[in-house]
Order: sequence, then structure tokens, then C-alpha cells
Amino acid sequence: MVADKTNVLLVGSGGIGTIAALNLQRGNQASVTCVLRSNFAEVKENGFKIESIDWGSIESFRPDQILNSIPDVSSGSQKPFRYIVCTTKNIADVSPTLAELIKPAVTPGYTVIVLVQNGLNIERPIIEAYPENIVLSGVSLCGSHETAYGHIIHEDSDELYIGPFRNPSLDPTTEDDAAKNFIQIYSASGKTQCEYAPNVGWTRWRKLLYNACLNPVCAITDLDTGRARLAPGTIEDLVRPAMEEIRAGAKAVGHDLPAELVDFFINLDPIPMYNPPSMQVDVRKGRFTEFENILGEPLKEGAAHGVPMPTLKFLYSVCRSLQWRTKEKNGLVTVPPAEDFTKPTK
Amino acid sequence: MVADKTNVLLVGSGGIGTIAALNLQRGNQASVTCVLRSNFAEVKENGFKIESIDWGSIESFRPDQILNSIPDVSSGSQKPFRYIVCTTKNIADVSPTLAELIKPAVTPGYTVIVLVQNGLNIERPIIEAYPENIVLSGVSLCGSHETAYGHIIHEDSDELYIGPFRNPSLDPTTEDDAAKNFIQIYSASGKTQCEYAPNVGWTRWRKLLYNACLNPVCAITDLDTGRARLAPGTIEDLVRPAMEEIRAGAKAVGHDLPAELVDFFINLDPIPMYNPPSMQVDVRKGRFTEFENILGEPLKEGAAHGVPMPTLKFLYSVCRSLQWRTKEKNGLVTVPPAEDFTKPTK
Repeated sequence: MVADKTNVLLVGSGGIGTIAALNLQRGNQASVTCVLRSNFAEVKENGFKIESIDWGSIESFRPDQILNSIPDVSSGSQKPFRYIVCTTKNIADVSPTLAELIKPAVTPGYTVIVLVQNGLNIERPIIEAYPENIVLSGVSLCGSHETAYGHIIHEDSDELYIGPFRNPSLDPTTEDDAAKNFIQIYSASGKTQCEYAPNVGWTRWRKLLYNACLNPVCAITDLDTGRARLAPGTIEDLVRPAMEEIRAGAKAVGHDLPAELVDFFINLDPIPMYNPPSMQVDVRKGRFTEFENILGEPLKEGAAHGVPMPTLKFLYSVCRSLQWRTKEKNGLVTVPPAEDFTKPTK
Repeated sequence: MVADKTNVLLVGSGGIGTIAALNLQRGNQASVTCVLRSNFAEVKENGFKIESIDWGSIESFRPDQILNSIPDVSSGSQKPFRYIVCTTKNIADVSPTLAELIKPAVTPGYTVIVLVQNGLNIERPIIEAYPENIVLSGVSLCGSHETAYGHIIHEDSDELYIGPFRNPSLDPTTEDDAAKNFIQIYSASGKTQCEYAPNVGWTRWRKLLYNACLNPVCAITDLDTGRARLAPGTIEDLVRPAMEEIRAGAKAVGHDLPAELVDFFINLDPIPMYNPPSMQVDVRKGRFTEFENILGEPLKEGAAHGVPMPTLKFLYSVCRSLQWRTKEKNGLVTVPPAEDFTKPTK
């Protein structure tokens, strides 16, 4: 049966990606190639060590193939990929973009690109670059972290919502079939909850209630989700207004997010539980954040539909400044060398 | 003449305070007692080492008297102070407050309390605690930093604007005289610009254009003044709107701050000059900030006069969250111990 396995490339094998690779491979219907970067040497040597709420302790998980760069399918030596599952961060304002990154591995008209990433409109640059390829939306509610190279702590069960990003020049039935086929392969292990969620917009706006609100507030204040609730005003003056703006934006584009979701997401982590959202971890570690996709794109939607979003605008502006700082630290922007001024004008 | 010198207590001998002590003592009309804390041992041993734009290099400046706690004048062994010059940070939400701190040194009805500190309404708790004492406003535009214990770098000439905070139960002429007398003593060295500025509200709102805007934006983004101008959007989406809100608030309470002041303060530090404002330094060092006086009080004034201040409100909310974090680090607030949750509700 090995010859019949679906060929899957997974790009970004960190916390979420490795659990996806595990589900796919253990379901026995996919042959999984993982592209690793920082953790390549460790995983090549020892495999992934995983402690999983769904799978228990796994001493060494070895994907079918691991690579340290995106494979080139044009040469013919690498079998084409039916699915490319993208679980990297999606940093819209830093090169290479995701569309550029995966280019060598995409077979036009054949490869289905699955974006297991946050934010809005992330399909646009992908569809633009690969107009003949089906692009699927993956919204993950999995909680999983790489605590050291190749060491995965998976503490919150895998839930993945898959649906097609519509490409007007493709047949919607074919898109739906690609989504359902992926779900079947991904679910075959029986250890995960992977569902067909055709209302991609609704699913993505719903997750923005968390990502566009708690993520940046925690990143900016460096308070984790528990502390954000304990520190006076952090929820009521920052998080809740931001969430209501997301609800208003969603409503303007046709997605009704129930009011109860606001408190549901605010109280997602029971106190005393102190979880730094991913953006907070990124800022702490001096890494780039996905602020353009999770704040900038909703703001554009709000502006296009006349929805005021002052809190999100403020969070966006601060995150953009933090990103610039990270760009400077990474040499992507430079500042003129400092001079001493003995007497500045005042 | 020594016996005729005015007895002055200076509380908070850091960058600004030490230059004030130097001016007062070198003018030869004041006997200066400095209360030191972290730098006491160093200064006791070696005096202050000062590199000053106004005074040149001073190897060892020794105030007439240095103490490591507020002196108690009630015993009679310590001569009463005519002036107490307060150059500490003014942290309204952390005990002891300034009013509590200086209590042992205040002689009711005699001591004039000079608040060389930022923000609005800082006189209220002082007048409440010392209703018979004159309270003066000092707005300093001096640039001076303590780079190591007892080592002062004074890079921006001393400018101090003194005027009375009005206390309805005191005689305004006596208040004016106390201000003018202090100015005379402070100016006697001839090395400083100390002016009578009776329109205290105008002077303080004017400085808020910088303090309530660039200070928190730089603190939150950790971009210094030069980088704030280089990073796209930081000035236009955060600093400038905040400054316009300060202008609107000032106008509502009768102070007309010219529109040109906005760009004046934005461009105060010529590029390439990268100055972290004091609040940014405080946040970097994990110290408390004066956010209540420089953001909270203008917001109250705005609210009382129907002036919308959304940007200042956001900056305030973030600064309050940062302050809570600092309080936790200093043991002033505690959080419930963390528990592991194997499967949080989602």
C-alpha cells in the first residue's frame, strides 16, 4: 500500500506542524516529508521527542523524509506533492514570503496548498502566485510548543478546521473534494478532530477574536493570558474593545459571531493558568510577528466597510513599531549612525 | 554669610536633582542637604562626578550635607528647611507617596515645597497633606542622567520654570514671593536659566506634549526618539494624535498650545540622535513609571471637559498594565500559583 500513499510536504515543523505530521503519518495514508530549519540536525539524529495529550509520550517520531530546504520537484527526482501543508508563521512583510518560499515544491495545477496559519486574506498572494492550484484554509486550535529543538509539548488537543479558499477560476466541487480528501487522510489516525468547515471566513474571523486581540495585547504588555485578566483594565480597556471591533468587522462582511464568544475567548484559559500567546512568545524572543495578517487585514476590511476599529488600529500601530525594531535587530532596516550633539535645540 | 544661607533639602539626587543641588550650592545663597538612596555610599565616599554642559567637568561635587533618609525636623537637632526641592519620580500609585515620604522634614506653615516633577495635579496630595505650606511648580527642561552611582552626565542645559501652585487658603502674594525668592537663590550661580512662570497650567500642559506622548510611545515600543521617527507610522499614528489630544485637553482648560509645538517636540532631537525618554529607560530597567500623573490626570481633565482622548487612553491602559507587571516583580501584587491543566476547555 506504500505506493498508494498520498505525497505530502509539510513546511514548518514546530509545535503545530509536528503534530500535523504525526497525525498524517500515523494515519498511514500519507507519505510525509518535513522541511526543517533550526531543528534539522537534532531531528535528523534523534527524531522528534513528543509529549502529547492525544498521543502520549513518543520517544522518537521520525517523519518519512526530512529535508533542510524546500525540495525542487522540477528536476523529476522528487515525486510531486499532492499537498503542501504550510504551518510556518506567515510574515507578510518580510522576505521571502510564503509564496516565494514554497515555489520549488509546487506542481502547477496539481499540488493543493493547505495554509494552516492565522489571519485574513492569506490566500491572496498564494492564489496570485499559483492560480491553477487549489488553496485550502486550515484553522488550528491545537496547543503545542517546541520547547527545545525537536522537543514538542502538545498540551491541548488537535482540532483542525479545513475548508477551501475560493478561487473563481477553479471548480468549487474540485476544491471541496480536495478539502474532504485531505480531511480523510488527516483524520485516519483516529487521534484528532479534523472537520470540514466550508465557511472559511466565519472560521477565520472567529479565531481573530483571540488572535487579533489577546495576542497583541499580551505581546505589547508582556502579560500572559492569566495575568492579563488579573491586571486591572487590561481586558476591559484593551482586549474586550478589540474583540467587539472584530465582531463588528465580521458582521460587516457577513459573519455573525455570537456575543458570547467574547467572554468565551477571554476566559479560555482558566486561572491560575498563565499562557503566553504565540505573539507574546515571538516578541519576547525577538522574532517577527504575523501582525499584518492578524491585524492589518481585518483593519483593511473594516476600513472598506466603514467599521471603526480604533483599538485594533492602535494595537496594529504598536505591533508595526515592534516589528520595525525586530527588523533593525535583524539588519533588514538600518538607521544612520548616532552623532553626539553637545547642545540640541530645545 | 554662612549663617544667612537658606536651608534647602533636596530629595532625589539623580540626574536632574544633582544639577539642581549644584546650582543651588554654587550660587552660595543656599545650604544644601541632599537625601540619597542607591548612590549614597558612592557619593559619601567620592562626591558626585559631573560632566556638565553648563559647568564643565567636576571631579567631586559634595553637597553641604548628605543623608540616606529624610531628616526629622521635629526633634530640633535639624534646622528647619525653608525649601524642600523634590526631584524624585512621582509615582502616584505606589507607596510611600511623595507626601508621605517628605513628612518628617516639613515644618508646617514654613517650608516651601518645590515639585520639580512632571504631570498634572501633582500638587493636590501635597496641598492636602500640608495645607499651610506653599507649594511651587518646577518644570525642568534639563537633560541629565546618572549613568552610574554618583556619575552625572548633564548634556542639555538647565532650564527651570518656577511658579506657584495656588492654594486658595494662602495669600497669592506670599506664594509669588516664595517663587521669586527661590528663583533668585537658584539663579545666583549664573550658570542656569531659571524663570518665573506664573501660568503653571500652561507650562505643565506644554511639557505634556512631550511627556504624555513621546514618553509612553517610546516606552511601549522600545523605540527611542530617533527610531520612533524612522519607524513608519510611529509618529503619525501614535505620537501626533496623542499630542493633538493634549492640545485639545489644554485648550478645554484654558491653555492655548500653538499647533507648531507638535512638530517642535516631535523634532526636538535631531536625527541621528537616539534618546530614550525617561519612561522608556524606566520600563527597560523594570522601574515604576509616572503614568498616572502624565497620562491619567490629563485623561481625567479631558473626561471632565468632554474632550475625546482615545490615543492617550490606549497609552494609559498599556502603561497601567506595564506598571502592574512591575508591581508583580516587586512583590506589590501577587498572582495565584500556576496549576497544570491537562485539558483546558476550548
